[in-house]
Amino acid sequence: MPKQEQFVKEITDMNVDFARWYTDVILKTELVDYGPVKGTMIIRPYAYAIWENIQAELNTRFKKTGHKNAYFPMFIPYSYLVKEAEHVEGFAPEVALVTHVGNEELPEKLVVRPTSETIICDSYAKWVKSWRDLPILINQWANVVRWEKTTRPFLRTSEFLWQEGHTVHETPEEAQEETLKMLEVYREFAENVLAIPVLVGRKSEKEKFAGAQATYGMEAMMLDGKSLQAGTSHYFGDNFSKAFDIKYASKEGDLKYVYQTSWGTSTRMIGALIMAHGDNRGLALPPKVAPVQAIIIPIAAHKGGVNEKAAEIKETLENAGVRVEVDYRDQSTGWKFNEWEMKGVPLRIEVGPRDIENGVVTVARRDDFSKAQIEIASLEKAIPELLDTIQKNMLEKARAFRDSHILTVQDMEGLTAAVNSGNFAKAMWCGERSCEDKVKELTSASTRVMPFDQTPVGTKCVCCGKNLLKEDGTTEGKVIYFAKAY
Amino acid sequence: MPKQEQFVKEITDMNVDFARWYTDVILKTELVDYGPVKGTMIIRPYAYAIWENIQAELNTRFKKTGHKNAYFPMFIPYSYLVKEAEHVEGFAPEVALVTHVGNEELPEKLVVRPTSETIICDSYAKWVKSWRDLPILINQWANVVRWEKTTRPFLRTSEFLWQEGHTVHETPEEAQEETLKMLEVYREFAENVLAIPVLVGRKSEKEKFAGAQATYGMEAMMLDGKSLQAGTSHYFGDNFSKAFDIKYASKEGDLKYVYQTSWGTSTRMIGALIMAHGDNRGLALPPKVAPVQAIIIPIAAHKGGVNEKAAEIKETLENAGVRVEVDYRDQSTGWKFNEWEMKGVPLRIEVGPRDIENGVVTVARRDDFSKAQIEIASLEKAIPELLDTIQKNMLEKARAFRDSHILTVQDMEGLTAAVNSGNFAKAMWCGERSCEDKVKELTSASTRVMPFDQTPVGTKCVCCGKNLLKEDGTTEGKVIYFAKAY
Repeated sequence: MPKQEQFVKEITDMNVDFARWYTDVILKTELVDYGPVKGTMIIRPYAYAIWENIQAELNTRFKKTGHKNAYFPMFIPYSYLVKEAEHVEGFAPEVALVTHVGNEELPEKLVVRPTSETIICDSYAKWVKSWRDLPILINQWANVVRWEKTTRPFLRTSEFLWQEGHTVHETPEEAQEETLKMLEVYREFAENVLAIPVLVGRKSEKEKFAGAQATYGMEAMMLDGKSLQAGTSHYFGDNFSKAFDIKYASKEGDLKYVYQTSWGTSTRMIGALIMAHGDNRGLALPPKVAPVQAIIIPIAAHKGGVNEKAAEIKETLENAGVRVEVDYRDQSTGWKFNEWEMKGVPLRIEVGPRDIENGVVTVARRDDFSKAQIEIASLEKAIPELLDTIQKNMLEKARAFRDSHILTVQDMEGLTAAVNSGNFAKAMWCGERSCEDKVKELTSASTRVMPFDQTPVGTKCVCCGKNLLKEDGTTEGKVIYFAKAY
Repeated sequence: MPKQEQFVKEITDMNVDFARWYTDVILKTELVDYGPVKGTMIIRPYAYAIWENIQAELNTRFKKTGHKNAYFPMFIPYSYLVKEAEHVEGFAPEVALVTHVGNEELPEKLVVRPTSETIICDSYAKWVKSWRDLPILINQWANVVRWEKTTRPFLRTSEFLWQEGHTVHETPEEAQEETLKMLEVYREFAENVLAIPVLVGRKSEKEKFAGAQATYGMEAMMLDGKSLQAGTSHYFGDNFSKAFDIKYASKEGDLKYVYQTSWGTSTRMIGALIMAHGDNRGLALPPKVAPVQAIIIPIAAHKGGVNEKAAEIKETLENAGVRVEVDYRDQSTGWKFNEWEMKGVPLRIEVGPRDIENGVVTVARRDDFSKAQIEIASLEKAIPELLDTIQKNMLEKARAFRDSHILTVQDMEGLTAAVNSGNFAKAMWCGERSCEDKVKELTSASTRVMPFDQTPVGTKCVCCGKNLLKEDGTTEGKVIYFAKAY
């Protein structure tokens, strides 16, 4: 049996069992391993390198929008958690608690941060005195802990890595503007870096963050038609500033409460990358986050000059800003092709003796499996261009997939059929929690976001059938997406 | 009273009370704030930006030496900690323990990592099968927790940020080579990036890491003559591989234990920067780690063209790779001079109307307070060169200080006098723990490192007076540095 087939067979067919496909891919590509404590994961070098690329891209965007990074302690006094009523209700059941140091019991149990609003607000109450101190625009990269019953690497783990922005403003308008600005930063990042087109909009009351006045999110469609919430941006109003007494002296000398936001994305995004772009051969990584953008495979390396030429091309491409490696290992060419295809490397460059004689190399794309011969002299320009093309093509492919998997539905029959056959359902919703709950109960789909474009897609609530068309021709209720979700 | 004097008076004179000077500097420059939980610190944006520069410089060096970053869970089953006997003895009393999640007690208490040898070795035991899997060269950036009785921001805190390298090798020789290679990476980094000349060498048995066969360290001299251990590199031999059963099949087919190392540096290095370079005006930051390398102060900004010229110069310098800002705030020039001097910015660029007419700016250095007029047209070249000069000058200044504060001593009288007057003592030591303990008891100085250059500096043990000169003319015992330490 040829090696290639052997190899591919190790990954479960995604159309047969998507969950097993996911597990096969993340373990076999050495993205991740399971930690010894339930629900924890080890982020192996290949996945961590993706995370570092994500961090670099987000940091550039955060800094451009005026934010600075900082670091707050991970241990939060339990008494802080309970200051904001909704917040404690949302997080208390899943927080890990430190009660002892060595053999000694602590005077107060400590929460291992599930998120840092409370401890950061405690500092902001000290730091904010006058309008001159505002706005405060801080972001933090950190590990957080939320004890989940059902876990899966990257998607839902007891500990994960993330960034959380926490900002303080003078007015509600300014804070609302920040909330939407960061949502837009996330959207642009998801599309242009992760090559994942996302649906953005406001979350329902049921789905919003514990303690927020409004939560906005971006939803990414996975290849099984399920949704993955890939980032959220919250407007807190003065909920936390009242709980933590964060006040400033205005220009006019009044003492006023501040208005706040927070926003976050996490290692979940690596899960999104896998499930938005992968296939039965394994990962397919967009060039902007791929740890290796081009892999050079020497062919018939025992022949003189092949390894030397490979090294030369590597240097040329490195100088052109490409993340490139040569696979010199003592393995068959077929094995190497499969290995790097599975690892999702965007470009494979084959360097063989005959090609060298002709001054060319063979370049194979991971996104569409096309192959072309390229002159060695033009690689410096051609490879970066090709990486750009792949980046764009992956986004368009994902967009076409998503757009063809959003069905507009008018009733529960339509909604059920849509979400049960791997689609999102776009529908009118009366806005009542009871309908949201009923849809969830009957289909296991939840409300995802209400898009900013609220052009009506029907006249009745998809669930209760209530007429939403008013006499003046306008429509009540909301346009909203329903989907099964990770 | 002029503003400048007012300002400077807020920082305690370092010659009067060095500890209060340190606290004043870190709080007033907004490097840090105290966290609500005992011994924790908030790393504010200005300090975190220094940390980011440190991370970038170290990452470049780690990657160049073949290491990759990864991330392991922070929760370690308690049973792991006890597998290596010395290790648990060293860390058990100061570990924070998670016992509950929400209201539920966990089946096994979890250690919040004080260091990650045990959890990483657990993975290595799974990942290492044959010689083909070796070496493994992994580094991790993470937060760690060690509950300390006496704490001080950056120097000793319950939680701190660090990097920990963990490597696995086939042979003792290869692991020993790695241990010393990373010590050298640290030394070169400390000198060329932090501008801190360090003493490197082996630690005594008493001072070595719990679980190591040998610990090497780098010691930095602070301006009060005390030593700060700024990084360590450990050779484990097969201590951990035996405890965690990490074996590989050799080329010859035998099953063999691996040999390991670990090495780490932490946010302590920010403390070292402060205490190695600061003065009574505040911080003085080496250009390579300074968040702002040059601050532009518009003079008489109400006059036309000043702010515009400042913005123009900023853009020019940014394009030349300089981290530069303009202080447009509505504050007096004197206030701004003091503020940025206190914050340790290497260069101040004054842009005033008369200077603009003459096509020049005034540039003031933080390291030696010298001022010069520089043509605007040549700033693009002159400022990066000046930053280089400052970087080198700060290292030389620190080296001169250090070299003049190392006294070679022959007996306890000399040693006591040296360490009590702000010096390191270089001495001969018989090698007995009893002498090490006695020196500590009598002077509070501890052994720091045994330098690689063991040219004898005397013939008797500095403590017990034992004759170390042998009949064949060689010398027993060790050359070692004693110092009070942070």
